[in-house]
Amino acid sequence: MHELSTAVVGASGYAGLELTRYLARHPRLRPVALYSDRWSGETAGARLPLGGAAAALRYLPLGEAAQAEAEVAFLATPAEVSLALAPQLLARGLRVVDLSGAFRLADPGLYPGWYGFTHAAPELLAEARYGLPELGRAALPGARLVANPGCYATAIALALAPLLRSGLVLAEGVAVAAMSGVTGAGRKASEDYSFCEVDEDLRAYRLGRHQHVPEIEQTVARFAGRCGPISFTPHLVPIRRGILASCTLRLAPGAEPAALARAYDVYAGEPFLRVLPADKVAVKDVARTNRVHLGVAVDARAGVAVAVSAIDNLVKGAAGQAVQALNAVMGWDEALGLDLLGG
Amino acid sequence: MHELSTAVVGASGYAGLELTRYLARHPRLRPVALYSDRWSGETAGARLPLGGAAAALRYLPLGEAAQAEAEVAFLATPAEVSLALAPQLLARGLRVVDLSGAFRLADPGLYPGWYGFTHAAPELLAEARYGLPELGRAALPGARLVANPGCYATAIALALAPLLRSGLVLAEGVAVAAMSGVTGAGRKASEDYSFCEVDEDLRAYRLGRHQHVPEIEQTVARFAGRCGPISFTPHLVPIRRGILASCTLRLAPGAEPAALARAYDVYAGEPFLRVLPADKVAVKDVARTNRVHLGVAVDARAGVAVAVSAIDNLVKGAAGQAVQALNAVMGWDEALGLDLLGG
Amino acid sequence: MHELSTAVVGASGYAGLELTRYLARHPRLRPVALYSDRWSGETAGARLPLGGAAAALRYLPLGEAAQAEAEVAFLATPAEVSLALAPQLLARGLRVVDLSGAFRLADPGLYPGWYGFTHAAPELLAEARYGLPELGRAALPGARLVANPGCYATAIALALAPLLRSGLVLAEGVAVAAMSGVTGAGRKASEDYSFCEVDEDLRAYRLGRHQHVPEIEQTVARFAGRCGPISFTPHLVPIRRGILASCTLRLAPGAEPAALARAYDVYAGEPFLRVLPADKVAVKDVARTNRVHLGVAVDARAGVAVAVSAIDNLVKGAAGQAVQALNAVMGWDEALGLDLLGG
Amino acid sequence: MHELSTAVVGASGYAGLELTRYLARHPRLRPVALYSDRWSGETAGARLPLGGAAAALRYLPLGEAAQAEAEVAFLATPAEVSLALAPQLLARGLRVVDLSGAFRLADPGLYPGWYGFTHAAPELLAEARYGLPELGRAALPGARLVANPGCYATAIALALAPLLRSGLVLAEGVAVAAMSGVTGAGRKASEDYSFCEVDEDLRAYRLGRHQHVPEIEQTVARFAGRCGPISFTPHLVPIRRGILASCTLRLAPGAEPAALARAYDVYAGEPFLRVLPADKVAVKDVARTNRVHLGVAVDARAGVAVAVSAIDNLVKGAAGQAVQALNAVMGWDEALGLDLLGG
Repeated sequence: MHELSTAVVGASGYAGLELTRYLARHPRLRPVALYSDRWSGETAGARLPLGGAAAALRYLPLGEAAQAEAEVAFLATPAEVSLALAPQLLARGLRVVDLSGAFRLADPGLYPGWYGFTHAAPELLAEARYGLPELGRAALPGARLVANPGCYATAIALALAPLLRSGLVLAEGVAVAAMSGVTGAGRKASEDYSFCEVDEDLRAYRLGRHQHVPEIEQTVARFAGRCGPISFTPHLVPIRRGILASCTLRLAPGAEPAALARAYDVYAGEPFLRVLPADKVAVKDVARTNRVHLGVAVDARAGVAVAVSAIDNLVKGAAGQAVQALNAVMGWDEALGLDLLGG
Repeated sequence: MHELSTAVVGASGYAGLELTRYLARHPRLRPVALYSDRWSGETAGARLPLGGAAAALRYLPLGEAAQAEAEVAFLATPAEVSLALAPQLLARGLRVVDLSGAFRLADPGLYPGWYGFTHAAPELLAEARYGLPELGRAALPGARLVANPGCYATAIALALAPLLRSGLVLAEGVAVAAMSGVTGAGRKASEDYSFCEVDEDLRAYRLGRHQHVPEIEQTVARFAGRCGPISFTPHLVPIRRGILASCTLRLAPGAEPAALARAYDVYAGEPFLRVLPADKVAVKDVARTNRVHLGVAVDARAGVAVAVSAIDNLVKGAAGQAVQALNAVMGWDEALGLDLLGG
Repeated sequence: MHELSTAVVGASGYAGLELTRYLARHPRLRPVALYSDRWSGETAGARLPLGGAAAALRYLPLGEAAQAEAEVAFLATPAEVSLALAPQLLARGLRVVDLSGAFRLADPGLYPGWYGFTHAAPELLAEARYGLPELGRAALPGARLVANPGCYATAIALALAPLLRSGLVLAEGVAVAAMSGVTGAGRKASEDYSFCEVDEDLRAYRLGRHQHVPEIEQTVARFAGRCGPISFTPHLVPIRRGILASCTLRLAPGAEPAALARAYDVYAGEPFLRVLPADKVAVKDVARTNRVHLGVAVDARAGVAVAVSAIDNLVKGAAGQAVQALNAVMGWDEALGLDLLGG
Repeated sequence: MHELSTAVVGASGYAGLELTRYLARHPRLRPVALYSDRWSGETAGARLPLGGAAAALRYLPLGEAAQAEAEVAFLATPAEVSLALAPQLLARGLRVVDLSGAFRLADPGLYPGWYGFTHAAPELLAEARYGLPELGRAALPGARLVANPGCYATAIALALAPLLRSGLVLAEGVAVAAMSGVTGAGRKASEDYSFCEVDEDLRAYRLGRHQHVPEIEQTVARFAGRCGPISFTPHLVPIRRGILASCTLRLAPGAEPAALARAYDVYAGEPFLRVLPADKVAVKDVARTNRVHLGVAVDARAGVAVAVSAIDNLVKGAAGQAVQALNAVMGWDEALGLDLLGG
C-alpha cells in the first residue's frame, strides 16, 4: 500500500515531537523530513523513542523547509512562519496541514486585532479547510490546506456548539474558564515557565484577549447558526499536558435539563468523543489520547448549564487532530494511526 | 500583657495544623490544648517545627474537647462536630471561632439542602458573627461566636462584593470558576486524593452544588445590597495549597471600564488586600500569607468584567482569617500575629 | 494467525491497567478475562481508552480467577495471592507470568526474612524462570511459570551485572540509591501516598530492608558470577511513574575508565537498552516505553564508578517486561506489541 | 536596641529573596539596601509580602553594590561576583556574609579544578570563617568575612562528620547520593529548568564533579580529623525546595549499631537539629525552616551505615544559615529571627 510521505516543520516543539511520534506509527504515513534548527543534524532516534526508519532521520535546518520533498507538510510553527511557508509548499504541490492560527479565521480583518499582523495571503483563508472533523468533516476530503484547530478552541467549540444549536441555551452571555498544561505555552527558555515559577502556582492570563476567541465563535456559529461574543479566561496550571474547559451558558426560558443532556447526541458514533457526567470529565482520562471527554450539568437555580470538556492539548489539541484531519482529507478511517492508548 | 488561652479542636487537619503554627507565634494568644484523635498522646513538637511551650503540648482525644479549659476555642472540625461542640463550649464561657460551615448561614432553612442536615441550634445562627472583616468588621468586636468563612467563599465574595455594590455590573448571571489545591479537601486516606490520581489531572466537581454558594450569595447581598443566584464551578488542581477564582460578571449598560477598576477602592488601607492587574494575580504570591490578591479586567466586546482573586486556602481561607477575626473580636490590630512572610 | 488468549488478575492496579493496555494492542495476544474486585461488573472501556473487543470486557471478581479460561494468566497481585493462585492455574494448564515477588527467589529460605512468609510451594521456585531477557533469555523459551522481575531489581541489576562481570569493579561495597515514582507503591487509599503528603516531599524508606535486595544479588551473581551484599536505599519522590537508580561501585585496582564504559557492550543489539553518558540518563526519556537508559561515569579521584539507569516502573519494571518475557517464552520477537512511543 | 543595617546583593535570586524575608523580620537586623539588576527600580513590597520599611525599599542596580552603605553585606551572587565585591566591601568596613563558594575552600589550589577560576584573593581564604555553627561555631564570633556553606555541603557534612569522628565507620568509601529541588539551580530562563522538562523527570548531574565535594571533605576532616575522598552523585527532582541526602558509609570492624546511633549525640542541644529514625527524615518537615532532620540506619548484612539528612536548600542551605552565622558572629542567640514555622 502506498505510504504518503510527510514532512514536519518545527519538529522539536512539543506539538512537533508528538506529531513525529504519531507519523512514525501511522500505517499509511511515512515521515521523510523533520525540520528544526534546535536539533539540526541530530537523529530523531536520539530525541524520541522511535524505531525503524524514522529513528534514522536527521533534523534539517528550518530554512530548508520550503524545499521539502514530501507529499504532505505539517507546519508546527508560529503563525508568521506558517504564513510564509504554506504558499511556497502549496505552490510546489504539497498538501499542507498547518497547526498554527495562520489560516483558521475566514475573515482576514480579524488578524490585526487578535494576531497582531495583517494577513498576507487572504486568498488562502478562503481555501483553507478547518480541521475539526466532528463539527464539519464534509469540508475535508481532498483539501489542499488544512487549518488545524487551536487547542483551547477544540475543547471549547466541541463543548459549546451542540448546546447552542439545540436552542436550549442563549447565544449571549457564554462565559468560559479553561485551564491548560504548560506544554500549551510551547517549548522555550523562559523564566515565566520555569519549574520554580509554575509549580504550585495558578494564574489567569490574556483575559478576553486570547486569539482562540474568534476561532471559537466562528466554529460555533458555523455549526450552530448563532454565537454571541464569548468571554474566555484561560489559566496556566502546573501540569505538563491537558486542557479542561468549563463553559457556563444561560438557559433559554423553558429549557429542560434532560433535553439539554441530549444535545450531545449529535456526537453519537464519534470515535474520539465520549459523553460523561460533567464531574467525571478529567484530563487524566484523555491524556496521551486523541479523545475528548465532555459533559453538561444543569444548575436550574442559577439558570445555567455548565459544560465541561477535557482534551490532551498536544494530541486532540494539536498532533492527533492533525493526523485525524489528514485521514479525513485522504478519505481514510479517521482513527487510523491514532490508537495510542493513553497512560 | 495577658495572653488569651486558646484551644484547637481538630488540630491534626491541615487547617488545624496551620492554626497551631499561627497561635504559637501570636504575641497575645497562647495555645493550651490541642485536640486530635489521630495524634492523641503525641507532642505538637513531634509534628510541627514549633519551639517553646507549644512544642510540649500533647494532643488530646477529641472526645475531651467539650471540657477544654481555655478562653477561646477554635473548631477546625466537620460542621456536624462543630454544631455539637459549640453550644457546650459557649455554655462554659468560652468564645468560639468555628472554621466549619455550621454557623455561616443566617437562614437555617438552607442547611438541609446545602449541608445535608437540619440545623439543631438555629438560635446560634442569629448570634454568630461572620468573620470576614473586610466586608463587615463592625459586627465582630466582642462576638462570642465567630463563623469563619469558607475558603472559596472568602476568595469569591471579596472579588464580587465591591463590583456588585458599584452598580456597574448586573446582579444576575454571575459565573464563577475556581480552582483549589488539594489541602482544600482535607487530610484523608482516599484513593481520589492520592498522588497518582491527582498529579497531572484537572477536573470539576460539585458543579452548582458546592455548599459555599449560599454563603457567597449571603455575604455579597449583605455588602452590596443585591446578589442574584451565582453559578459556581469548583475545580481540583494539583497544587498543595491555594485558590484562584475567576468570576465573570455582565456589565451594566453604560458601565465604564475605568469606573469598574475603582470599585476595589473600598479596600484601600486593608492590610491584607492588594489590587493588581487581573493577569498578575497569582497563587504563589499569596501562598503562606493571609493576603488576598485581586484584580478585574473588562472585556467590553463580550460585555463582561472578569474578576480574579487568589488566596491561600489554609491561611486567609482558614487559619489566618480565624486569627484575624479573633483579633477584631478582641479589639486588637487585625494583623497581629499574621506577619508570616510567605515563601 | 492464532492469538493467545490471556487473563489479567489484579487488573485495576497500576501494573494491571498498563498490562491491559499492552495486551489490547499486542498482535498475537488477546485479553479475554480481567479480574478485579474494585471494578467488578464494569467494562474495561469505561476505565481505559481501549477500542475493540477489549473495551467490552467486564471486570470479574478476583475470587473467580482460579477458574480463568485462557492460555496465559498474568498475575498482577500481591505475592501471597500469586502464591495461592499460580499452582491452581498451572494445574489447569495455563502458563503463568507472575508480576509479584512470589517466585523470584530460588532459595525458599530467603522468603521469611525478606517477604514475611514461609514459601508454600518451593518446588515452583525451582521451575520458575526469571523474566529478565537481557540477563538470561536462554531460560525463557517454553517456560510454564515466569517470575517477572521487580521494578527496582530491573533497573539496578541491569546497571550492575555487566560491571561486576567485567572484573573492573569490586564485588563488595556496592551502594545503590534509587528513586521511584508513586505508582510503585500501588493503588491504594492511604494518607501516606496522598497528594498533600507526597507532593514537594522526598524521603528514604525501607533502608537496607527492601525485598528487591536478594533478587538483585541473585540476578547479578547469576550473570556476573559474583556479587557481594548490596546496600540499597530506596526513595519516594513526587512523580507518577519512573525509577532512577544510582549505583556506586568501587573500582578494582588498575581499572581503566575506558574499559569500564565498554562493559555495557554486552547490551549491543538489545532493542530496549540504550547506553548514554550517565548524566544524560533521565526518566522522562523512558517514560511510557519498555526502554532502559543507562550509563556509567568513573570518578577516579574517589575510586568509584557510578552507574545510572532509568526505567518506567510500570513498563520495563512491570507490564512491558511481562509482555517481553512472554514473547521470549513463545519464541516471538521480544519487541512484539511493545512499540508504544512514550510521551 | 541598635539594629544592624544590612544590604543584600543579588536580592532577586531565590536565596536573595529568602534572605530579604528573614532580614525584614529579624529583631536586630534591618535591610537598608537591596541590589538586583532584574528588578532595579521596583519596590521590595511589589515582589514580596513584606510590611513596614522593608516594603518601601527600591531594588538598586548591582553595579552600585560596592558602595553599599550598611554594616553587613550579604552576597547572594555567583562566586566570581562575590570574589570581586567582597574585598571592596571589607575595605569599606562592612562585614560580609558570602553565600557563594568564593571563600569556602581554604586551599586556593582547589579553585581552578572545582570552580573553574584561579582565586584572586587567597589571603581572604585564610581570613574567612566557614559559617556552619554546628560543626565549628567557635570560629565565628567577631568574624569579618563569613563563607556561608553550600546547600548540599550543609546537609551532607552534618550527616557525615559525627559518624566519621566516632571511628565506627571507615574514612574511605563514603558514597553520597542527594536530591535537590529546582530552586537549587537558581532563578534563570533555561529550557533545562522549564516546568515541562523537569516535571515528572529524575536525573543525575555533575557526577563526581560537583563543587561541593571539596567543601564537604574539608568540613568533615576539620571536625572528624579524617575524611577520605567522597563519591557524590547529585540529582535533580521535581520539587521547588529541599534537599535529601543519603550517605552510605562502610562500618568499621566491630562497630556496634547502637553505638553508631549515639554518634549524633554531639548535636544534643542544637536548636535546629533533630535526630530521627532514618526513614522518618523528610523534606516536607524541614521546608521553610532552618531545621536539619537527620538519622542513621545500620545495615549489618551489607556492612554499612546509611545516614539520611534533609534541609530546605534556601533556608538552612542558604539564607537561614547566613542569618544564623551572623547571629553567631555578633554573639547573639543563634536562633534569633529564625523562628519561621514551616508549612
